[in-house]
This record gives sequence, structure tokens and C-alpha cells, in this order.
Amino acid sequence: MTLRIDRETRLCLSISARPSNFGTRFHNYLYEELGLNYVYKAFAITDLAGAVAGIRAFGIRGAGVSMPFKEAVIAFADELRPSAAAIGAVNTLVNDGGRLTAHNTDYIAVARLVVDHGVPPATPVVLRGSGGMAKAVAAALCDAGFRSGTVVARNEDAGRALAARCGWEWSPTLAPKPGEAMLVNVTPIGMAGGPDADELAFPAEAIGTATVVFDVVALPSETPMIRVARSLGRPVITGAEVIALQAVEQFELYTGRRPAADQIARAAAFARA
Amino acid sequence: MTLRIDRETRLCLSISARPSNFGTRFHNYLYEELGLNYVYKAFAITDLAGAVAGIRAFGIRGAGVSMPFKEAVIAFADELRPSAAAIGAVNTLVNDGGRLTAHNTDYIAVARLVVDHGVPPATPVVLRGSGGMAKAVAAALCDAGFRSGTVVARNEDAGRALAARCGWEWSPTLAPKPGEAMLVNVTPIGMAGGPDADELAFPAEAIGTATVVFDVVALPSETPMIRVARSLGRPVITGAEVIALQAVEQFELYTGRRPAADQIARAAAFARA
Repeated sequence: MTLRIDRETRLCLSISARPSNFGTRFHNYLYEELGLNYVYKAFAITDLAGAVAGIRAFGIRGAGVSMPFKEAVIAFADELRPSAAAIGAVNTLVNDGGRLTAHNTDYIAVARLVVDHGVPPATPVVLRGSGGMAKAVAAALCDAGFRSGTVVARNEDAGRALAARCGWEWSPTLAPKPGEAMLVNVTPIGMAGGPDADELAFPAEAIGTATVVFDVVALPSETPMIRVARSLGRPVITGAEVIALQAVEQFELYTGRRPAADQIARAAAFARA
Repeated sequence: MTLRIDRETRLCLSISARPSNFGTRFHNYLYEELGLNYVYKAFAITDLAGAVAGIRAFGIRGAGVSMPFKEAVIAFADELRPSAAAIGAVNTLVNDGGRLTAHNTDYIAVARLVVDHGVPPATPVVLRGSGGMAKAVAAALCDAGFRSGTVVARNEDAGRALAARCGWEWSPTLAPKPGEAMLVNVTPIGMAGGPDADELAFPAEAIGTATVVFDVVALPSETPMIRVARSLGRPVITGAEVIALQAVEQFELYTGRRPAADQIARAAAFARA
């Protein structure tokens, strides 16, 4: 209830050029569920310096940081935690009495998910994409011990740089038969409303022989690639899991509380609705 | 419900060194009552420049300004409206797409209340106090046509300056028999929790002959002076009316909506609880 908000209520927020509703609905659901005196609100901003000044002046407890501020915000943080330092990108600021620590909960979430799903680090990785999120995912995987991998990206500079960061290889095209690998899509292929919404990020043949199929696209929660993988009996990790788990990591950083699995599931369902 | 908050929800807030809960509860109650997609939150701040930068960066629709920032905030406003210019003090900022206009709704509320209560401007005013709120009240009254008045204040410099602003007189002490005047208390006398909580701002004898008794102290809503005035059958204007009406003026500036009288009464009762 907004009627319970008072001067003690802590505000958390997010800053981005074009915010979604996911974080606002996810965090507020769990504040209600756990009876915490917090409120969350997404903001569309253009002035990053002013926003950070406001975060400090208002004593905002936590701030999610999205496109296009994930790298520029580093200059305003007092301390970079390993998750953010590992990839040079921040998606979370935590304010402890005016001291801003910078984290990347996408990185943390990916590292946790492969453990939770029991994917052995010896599994070769084939990762499509070379943007900011691809960097977070690849770094989380190789830092978690995935020593063998291929970055598949048309952008040679970005692809080679990302592969070099991980000690992996770069390829401009998919190998015809990647075999027993973890296939990871970090492109917009399969994203609702995008130009490739109905496309598969990897061919069905490759999906059929994969050890695990990991799609970072969160909307829809069942992308064409995930649907094909399920139909072929392959284990999957979905973007819906990534977006929920990275938000849970933020939630714990902000509140010190870890919701139960069923609470997280309900919050994620509410946030997607 | 905080569960209805989304990226479109507009945030209004207040800034002060030591916020009360009144504004937060009052505004949120009326947002719920009128079904407006707004949320309100009071903030304790020390860094005024950072707070104003945040107000701009986050597109905060409206900001209440309280002690000790009412004068310092003028430097950050793009435009001073007459209510604020009249007294050189701001209690409200309205943000229209990055342009901050400064208002003083205490001034507006006092001017409206004497009209609403039918107090003729020919009534002589005897006003105790010489602080910031005394300035707002005295200026609102003399600008509304109350040409005859006395500022009663021990602080000679402040008292004389305030009297001069209004073309009134200054006196260090109360006249023994002010007679048919509007008695106005703008000191902390009678304020709950203060050192003079049980005192009368004016002697009972003076209250008994007053045309109207106006106490700006809002907590308790029935101060000793108001109780005595009621018991003597004198018309009263209370600080509870001032705080509610100035908040209504803010509400209308922020939302463009004017709540009905019964809605205001319920919001004020909720905010005081």
C-alpha cells in the first residue's frame, strides 16, 4: 500500500533511457510480501550526473542501472565490486550512507544459474553475441571455470575482444555441428516484438545435440529456441530465470533479505504480467 | 497500493532537515482516493544542490520544501511565483519538463482561509512571532488587505522588519486589551511536545474579546488557545486548517486536481493519525 509509506520508507529505483516495468513490479511485490518498508520506482533519465547526485542527496538505498549508463556510471561509484570490475559494467549501485558500491548482478546471476542447473564447467560453450550483456555472460562463465568456448559474432573486433577476455575462440559463423556444448544466445533473436522474434538463435539440429540450451532473451519467457529445446528434451536455462535471479541479487543487496523460491516465482510472474 | 506503481508513476516528494509524516500520508491518501498514478515520499536531506539536481534528473513532478531550505532553494528555481516572491521563501517546487517554478502555499492557504472564514480585511491584526512562518502569515494578511496590524515579537530587528513589510506596527509586548482584533499566533506556544505546550499565546481576557482567533500551530489540532477560544464562543482558524489547505494547494499544483472538501477532511485526519 502506498498508504503505509512514511518518512522512514526507503526508496530504491532504477535509471535507464527506456525502463521496463519488471524491476518496479518485482521489487514492490516482494516488499509487500516480506513486509519491508521500501518502495521501488523506475525512472527514465538522460542526465546521469544529476541522477547520481540525487541518489546521494535523497539517500536512495539502491539503484538499478540499465542501458545506456552501465559503463558511464563507473566514474560516479566509490567502489567497484568484483562482479562489476570483471566486465567493466555496472547494473547495480548500493548506497551505504553516501558510499556507492557498484555491482553487476547479471554476472552474478549467470554464474549462479549454471551451478544451480548443474552444468559442468568442462562443458564447451558456444555463445552468440558480442554486446554488453554478452560480455557479462561470457565473463561469468569463463570466470566460473568454463575454459573452452567460442564466441560467435559478426562484429569481429567485439567478438575477438570478448573471446580474448575469456581465453576462448572467435568465429564469425556457427559451426555446422557444435555437438555436446552449452549453446548460449545473447542476441535479440527470438525477442518478442523484434525483427527476429520467430527465429532460432541456433539451428534445431545443434539444439538437439546440445548439453544445455541457455537463452538470455527474457521476453517471451519461452522463446522459439527454448521451445524447440524443450521439445527435443534438452535441459534449458531461460532469460526469465536470469532477469528474476539478477533482480533477487539486487533485492538482497538492498534489503539484506533473501526471498524464498516460491516468493521469487510469484514476484517474477507478477512482474511479467 | 505500491503494487500498482510502474514506470509511468509520477513521484512527488518533500525535502527538509527533519520531515514529518503529514505530507507523505496526506498526498498518498488522496492519490489513492482519486485513483491518480502518483506516489509521495518525504526525504531528510542535507545537500540541497544534489537534491535539486535529482529533482530535475528524475523528473520529480513536485517537491515540498521545508526548514531550513525555504530561502536557499530560491537560487535553484527558474521562476518565482508571486506567492513565493511576496515573502522571499519557497515551500513548493513544481517541475514542468525541467522548468522549476517556486511557490509558497502557506501564503496562499492563509490568504484563502481568512476569506473562507469571512474575516473582514478591516479587522485589526495582532500577530505574535517573527520567524519564517510569521513572515508568510503577516504578508498573506496584509497583501489581502489587512492594513492595520501589530507584530508582537521580542526580537526587535525581525519584528520591526516584518511590521515594515506590512505597514504595521511593532511592539515587544502584548497590549493589555487588544479588543476587537484577529489574534494570530505564529510562535511555538501551545505546540505539542514543546516547552510551552500548555501555555496560551494570548491571555484568556484578550481571547474573549477577539473577533477571531487564528493559531498556526497544527499539533495538536486543538491547542490551548483554540480550546479557550471555542469555550468563549470566539470564531477560530486552526493550524490544522493551514497545514491541510497548504497541502491541498500543493496537491492541485502537482496533479491539476482539486479534491472535494470531504476527501480533504479524510486525508487530513489520516495524515494526522
